[in-house]
Amino acid sequence: MDMPKSQRFHKRLRGRVDMTHGAGGKAMANLIHDLFSRAFDNEWLAQGNDFALLDLPPGRPVMTTDSYVVSPLFFPGGDIGKLAVHGTVNDLAMAGAEPLYLSAGFILEEGLPFADLERIVLSMAEAAHEAGVCIVTGDTKVVERGKGDGVFINTAGLGVVPDWVEVAPSGDAARPGDRVLVSGTVGDHGICILGTREGLRFESDVQSDTAPLNGLVAAMTIIEPDLRVLRDPTRGGLATTLNEIAHQSRCGIRIREDAVRVKPAVAAACELLGIDPLYAANEGKLVAICAPEDAEELLHVMRQHPRGRDATIIGEVVEAEHPFVELETTFGGRRLLDWLTGEQLPRIC
Amino acid sequence: MDMPKSQRFHKRLRGRVDMTHGAGGKAMANLIHDLFSRAFDNEWLAQGNDFALLDLPPGRPVMTTDSYVVSPLFFPGGDIGKLAVHGTVNDLAMAGAEPLYLSAGFILEEGLPFADLERIVLSMAEAAHEAGVCIVTGDTKVVERGKGDGVFINTAGLGVVPDWVEVAPSGDAARPGDRVLVSGTVGDHGICILGTREGLRFESDVQSDTAPLNGLVAAMTIIEPDLRVLRDPTRGGLATTLNEIAHQSRCGIRIREDAVRVKPAVAAACELLGIDPLYAANEGKLVAICAPEDAEELLHVMRQHPRGRDATIIGEVVEAEHPFVELETTFGGRRLLDWLTGEQLPRIC
Repeated sequence: MDMPKSQRFHKRLRGRVDMTHGAGGKAMANLIHDLFSRAFDNEWLAQGNDFALLDLPPGRPVMTTDSYVVSPLFFPGGDIGKLAVHGTVNDLAMAGAEPLYLSAGFILEEGLPFADLERIVLSMAEAAHEAGVCIVTGDTKVVERGKGDGVFINTAGLGVVPDWVEVAPSGDAARPGDRVLVSGTVGDHGICILGTREGLRFESDVQSDTAPLNGLVAAMTIIEPDLRVLRDPTRGGLATTLNEIAHQSRCGIRIREDAVRVKPAVAAACELLGIDPLYAANEGKLVAICAPEDAEELLHVMRQHPRGRDATIIGEVVEAEHPFVELETTFGGRRLLDWLTGEQLPRIC
Repeated sequence: MDMPKSQRFHKRLRGRVDMTHGAGGKAMANLIHDLFSRAFDNEWLAQGNDFALLDLPPGRPVMTTDSYVVSPLFFPGGDIGKLAVHGTVNDLAMAGAEPLYLSAGFILEEGLPFADLERIVLSMAEAAHEAGVCIVTGDTKVVERGKGDGVFINTAGLGVVPDWVEVAPSGDAARPGDRVLVSGTVGDHGICILGTREGLRFESDVQSDTAPLNGLVAAMTIIEPDLRVLRDPTRGGLATTLNEIAHQSRCGIRIREDAVRVKPAVAAACELLGIDPLYAANEGKLVAICAPEDAEELLHVMRQHPRGRDATIIGEVVEAEHPFVELETTFGGRRLLDWLTGEQLPRIC
């Protein structure tokens, strides 16, 4: 009882997850108290209820969710915990909302080392702190060995679109003439995961770009641009995201290959693996579509922000009877960029 | 193209889930469009964004989450889909909130028959309709065969505690003298799942009690009782829930065995399986703790409601230096009811 808190923390977290940690009894209560409540440390979790009673600032509430099943759990530049915070924070940011609260649901596989779980949970806590959100409510389940894969995490997010935003960006709002911007290089996350999984050693470091984008979006909205669409090109990559938008907005999108930035190390790995970087996942990039007259100023503002330093205008929206996405290649040719159709990169997030 | 919508629906849903359905491309978009958006049918899903922009009535927002990993996926009285709606609706109701919106995150195992997924999703849609909530945003992931178990579902819920509720019920609000009520029989869900899993055939039907409790809570609050605590005794059962409350409120709780109702068929199965029904999960029952002067009227109101017909006052809160829960047995003896310590019933919800 006289042991310092931190020491007790570590003492209890040796060993591995077993079925009792999901049974609803004392072992689960201890796990929640010793790990989750401590790491995420806030008034809501301290209350020990199965819910969180929240305060929301004025504006329109936004809700989102994602489950994370990335394999491997740890990779250069991040881990499943960081991804679970960033991904959901970014979905809120893409609605033009200020992310505020997250829930976290863990599905643990029997046998998961507590050391791994602790590392993931502390990483989530750090990511939440950086993004300015609180993890206010949660849940833990355990499944038998061979019925899961280490850990799956679901986060749901709640945020608010401030009252002064008249029209929240939406995938169906792109109009002919609008400009298409991307906040940086593409393919980093997908190639990092695939490379790690395949045990490839890249010459240069290929790291996941996992990052919260709410700060960048806040900076972008300061100039009050006529922002039609915001979306983060995660699974399926930039090409699939543009197809989704073309489909929702019933328009065509033309982009220029030489305006889309790909890190040299990522480009080299793509060549080696036979992957098109336009279809590889990103976890810290956004696509913005805005009115043509705001494009240059928006680009300028994005480039001032650390998460938008490599932003470019990659193309524009055109009128079309049937939605399409077309790439003008570096050599001046044109080809259609279709949806991702196969299983290029499973369990990328 | 001239085929009726319903026929196309069924045509596409033959076969099994494969890795492409989680890859973020066309197969996933089709699955979302053909199954989820149709079954849950609402304006938010129709927009096709990764978020839902919501309206909330006046009051305090409440957020909660649970993941569902129940095995088997289908059982007498319900299935994982129904459970995923009821469980989260009930967590909101236990905050005294009106449940409004749910998110749904699916983790599918490669090889899951679409027929099973469709049955689960339609069951969720029906449960959501009955409880008066909308499933407004979602996510689908697929994991390789042997890395999951059919389907896991996470739901997060958003509701609002109306402004006229001055103090929302909370686990730390029980006071000495308060009365403890239970809304009906205990152990039904836990024994149903265990029996189904073990392939037992009970003489009488033992069915899960899975049900939404927001209607019952709304009826209870009409008389404006001094309601300190509301909680649904799920994993760990009634005994564990009472221990949680005793712990949070720093009090003792004394209950009478003969006041706790157990269906005869459940009692018989418990005897056969060596399970104490006080530790078996419930999915459509609540524990209410209220000021002594309101107990009889509250009981009366609960019994008028279909979900509270078998409600009883089972005991009272007492002052205590160390939290405890004590059972007065039918024969007049007393024994302590501890937390569930082992792994009585894994994957019960």
